[in-house]
Amino acid sequence: MTDDLAELESASRRLADSVRRLIDATIRTQVDAAALVEVSHAIDFATEELSAAMMPSSFGVQATEDGRPMAWGNVMIGLRNAVAPPLVVNRGSDSAVWSDFALGAAYEGPPGLVHGGVCAMVLDHVLGATAHEPGRAAFTGTLRIRFLRGTPLGELRAQAHVDRVEGAKTFAVGHLADARGVTVEADGVFIHPREQTPGG
Amino acid sequence: MTDDLAELESASRRLADSVRRLIDATIRTQVDAAALVEVSHAIDFATEELSAAMMPSSFGVQATEDGRPMAWGNVMIGLRNAVAPPLVVNRGSDSAVWSDFALGAAYEGPPGLVHGGVCAMVLDHVLGATAHEPGRAAFTGTLRIRFLRGTPLGELRAQAHVDRVEGAKTFAVGHLADARGVTVEADGVFIHPREQTPGG
Repeated sequence: MTDDLAELESASRRLADSVRRLIDATIRTQVDAAALVEVSHAIDFATEELSAAMMPSSFGVQATEDGRPMAWGNVMIGLRNAVAPPLVVNRGSDSAVWSDFALGAAYEGPPGLVHGGVCAMVLDHVLGATAHEPGRAAFTGTLRIRFLRGTPLGELRAQAHVDRVEGAKTFAVGHLADARGVTVEADGVFIHPREQTPGG
Repeated sequence: MTDDLAELESASRRLADSVRRLIDATIRTQVDAAALVEVSHAIDFATEELSAAMMPSSFGVQATEDGRPMAWGNVMIGLRNAVAPPLVVNRGSDSAVWSDFALGAAYEGPPGLVHGGVCAMVLDHVLGATAHEPGRAAFTGTLRIRFLRGTPLGELRAQAHVDRVEGAKTFAVGHLADARGVTVEADGVFIHPREQTPGG
């Protein structure tokens, strides 16, 4: 990685972290309406600064000079995307993958609990990661989710492994867990397309 | 609604909209590292202003003086949550529900496409909405998602209806579509718990 790219990556990470804290504060603040409007003006000014030079569409997957793919805008792993927790997916020696992460107020559904849809989103990504290969993304074919109990906001782990492979199809199973154990189970079929098609 | 609450709601909505535009610009900007760091400082300052008075945990579901529930922090519908598109769920005369919304760069998975996990998240919420009643939330029991093709970023509709009800269980079906037609299908079982349990 060139020094310039390393510097840009570090500054991008710092900015996304700042925006994550802002999202959390926007939800939880108890300051009055006048103060909220004042902060809105400051945010709009910051957005204008960033808009001085913008790519015309979404980030996509860009390549570094040495061909490394950068998915900086990805909603689950993108280091520039403040919506992403972001997930860091670890890979074991076999097909196992796992990710430890924390979900705060921005991911809430029922009071104190992670929204069921967020659980599904994380599991889609982590199960799909068992099938991803560098430069050869896998797309979700089907996904089944079983909710065993509520998932509390806080520290969580998602993990998955390959159950079997049939041609272009990878069958993966996994779960989401808190310190007390499994909260949500999932299985899914992930497909390596000949060309780009469906949606994971 | 009291004037004070209406004013707070309006200012909250404005701030979350500003933060959404900031999230998008953070992903798509092409300004240099020094400018990113400068903007980070401005964001941190704004977060400090909001942190002058903060609720100790997540927003949860708070009640207005007249007993109306406010899920302002909800990751899918919360008007204070910049992660939420936010969805506005419409209800037909029968069990049908639908939501028209746009997903931008912050929801990307494969280049130009909505992340499959985001599709699952939206469908969980919209199918679940068929079973929700005021003051009586339904939790996701199981959810099955079938991806037919990639879902492009942009204008989308999610819709769902009740297939049948068996005791505390509501069986819902639905889909996500773009202007060309259905991209993702889903069915799920949603449960009205006696007490608070699982996770939608």
